[in-house]
Amino acid sequence: MSELRYNRLKDTWTIIAEERAKRPHDYKEYTKEEATQIENCPFEYGNEHMTPPEVFAIREKNTKPNSSGWKVRVVPNKYPAVSPQTPLDYFFRCIYDNVTGFGYHEVIIDTPDHFKQIQDFNKEDFQYLFTAFKERLKALSNDNRIKYIHIFKNHRKEAGKSLYHSHSQLIALPMIPKLVDTQINQSRSYYKQKERCLLCDEVMYELETEERILYKNEKFVVYCPYASLYPFEIRIVPYPHSYSFLEIKKFDYLIDAVKVAVKKLNNTLLDPPFNLILYTSPPKRDNYKIPDYFYNIEIFNHWYIEILPRITTHAGFELGTGYYINPVPPETAVNKLKQE
Amino acid sequence: MSELRYNRLKDTWTIIAEERAKRPHDYKEYTKEEATQIENCPFEYGNEHMTPPEVFAIREKNTKPNSSGWKVRVVPNKYPAVSPQTPLDYFFRCIYDNVTGFGYHEVIIDTPDHFKQIQDFNKEDFQYLFTAFKERLKALSNDNRIKYIHIFKNHRKEAGKSLYHSHSQLIALPMIPKLVDTQINQSRSYYKQKERCLLCDEVMYELETEERILYKNEKFVVYCPYASLYPFEIRIVPYPHSYSFLEIKKFDYLIDAVKVAVKKLNNTLLDPPFNLILYTSPPKRDNYKIPDYFYNIEIFNHWYIEILPRITTHAGFELGTGYYINPVPPETAVNKLKQE
Repeated sequence: MSELRYNRLKDTWTIIAEERAKRPHDYKEYTKEEATQIENCPFEYGNEHMTPPEVFAIREKNTKPNSSGWKVRVVPNKYPAVSPQTPLDYFFRCIYDNVTGFGYHEVIIDTPDHFKQIQDFNKEDFQYLFTAFKERLKALSNDNRIKYIHIFKNHRKEAGKSLYHSHSQLIALPMIPKLVDTQINQSRSYYKQKERCLLCDEVMYELETEERILYKNEKFVVYCPYASLYPFEIRIVPYPHSYSFLEIKKFDYLIDAVKVAVKKLNNTLLDPPFNLILYTSPPKRDNYKIPDYFYNIEIFNHWYIEILPRITTHAGFELGTGYYINPVPPETAVNKLKQE
Repeated sequence: MSELRYNRLKDTWTIIAEERAKRPHDYKEYTKEEATQIENCPFEYGNEHMTPPEVFAIREKNTKPNSSGWKVRVVPNKYPAVSPQTPLDYFFRCIYDNVTGFGYHEVIIDTPDHFKQIQDFNKEDFQYLFTAFKERLKALSNDNRIKYIHIFKNHRKEAGKSLYHSHSQLIALPMIPKLVDTQINQSRSYYKQKERCLLCDEVMYELETEERILYKNEKFVVYCPYASLYPFEIRIVPYPHSYSFLEIKKFDYLIDAVKVAVKKLNNTLLDPPFNLILYTSPPKRDNYKIPDYFYNIEIFNHWYIEILPRITTHAGFELGTGYYINPVPPETAVNKLKQE
């Protein structure tokens, strides 16, 4: 059973999760076995018994849960950082503050195809994947103990992906994570000053100058942010304003935008490792510490997806300061990406 | 010329530094040439001309600056993130806020011995190294434009060290970095509530329970923090209270403590990559944004050294939330370390 411990000096939380250490060993590269021998892969058709029972799937007609025939399949993580079986409780050990390891840690198996990675996904694959994102977001928002649902995808070992078969992850927590909270607070204070959304202003300015725009379609704009923390960082932002991933009715334009971003990144940097992260608004709750935290959140908070390529190593500077050194200006990055 | 760009959404700064991309290529492992062919290494005796002129050195008698005969040598980084030649200026580009890339980025060449790494350092090596830290801290504190001096050491490629020959780094900036600011603010608000220092309380509790203590001597305590963000994270803290590295008169006890920490880590994890970070108090300045920011800083802020082993990969969870998953409880870590 894991637990969350508050690091008061650094004002953040760490999940102490011994279970995680039992994961398939973190080799630097996938072994040939892992990459090719599908019989041992828990994400294959016929191996559904190798994972905990599914909580969601899109399936061919007349196929049963936990059997083959699925298009996308969501299962609890076998080595969870947090678990819904753990009762939510807040406690202390003398000077230290803790929360039990309550939450949801799920794996979204993107595709039944062992060899298909995100750069190979077609429109349908993305349609299934984003539907799974939305359905799990919706379902877990109904658990009142959950304050935020974090969805992300690690692409390649160097970005923290432990199994070769393409998958995404979801971690739902009884608190709003530090960086999400920062973004909400920054957007909130900007709105208070300007009565405009921070990310709307940014998108409008970026569209005007066109200096860092990689692509746009009717509903999404894709660009390298002005103060990119990572080389070749890409932001995919809906416009006009939308505050939650749950607002999307049809995924067509999002799929188009994500496909372009992934393709260009893949062609420019030759299949680089990256993390894809979804930032959306937390479900509204009554018990949040700041009285107006959720007031107008539909207007001031803007959901988006970011892609963070992992081609540089963060060292003592980044770890110690929380600042970043980025050797590739986003203007240079976007020009290279555009050429591909 | 680099520049600092403010990332408003994430409330942090990124240094856009194209110069850094010209560094020796970031291979995953050192090439055999790099590790063995000392004639190309800019940190060797006789190769002093391969670096910018030194700003500090401890030397044998009658040796000249920028010639051999030094014990430790500090030079400006050849590929600097920030530079003292850049005039300090604050500016904007429409909606974006910037600071010019003013600052100091220096390399501390720990030892003239190409093959000696930190786990091999003897008492004298550490004596030279910490003297260099202190002298540069003191010297750069006198530049009123500088608000913080960050000193760190990257050990092995996987922790971001680009050249094989052992070295440390210093980056001095015209602002107090986000994470340092967080720690000061957390310590400050704790002191306001309790009239006691946060880290003093932690050290006292740790000494009492002994659950996470790895080692102590007359002036330092070495332990794995309760809410360790990294597996096998180690904190080396002076006691009784001390607010600045500049307060140390004699390095004996610090050297003893650091040697034990490095040796035990090296034996337990077999020479793991790690970052060693020095957190000390910023020099007092008149122009800080919070009126009482520096008031009582000598009492509430506590300097320390931390060692962050890089044996796990941060993925979409850590990057997106600012929270951490640590699969090794510090209680387990300290027991393993103690056995070595």
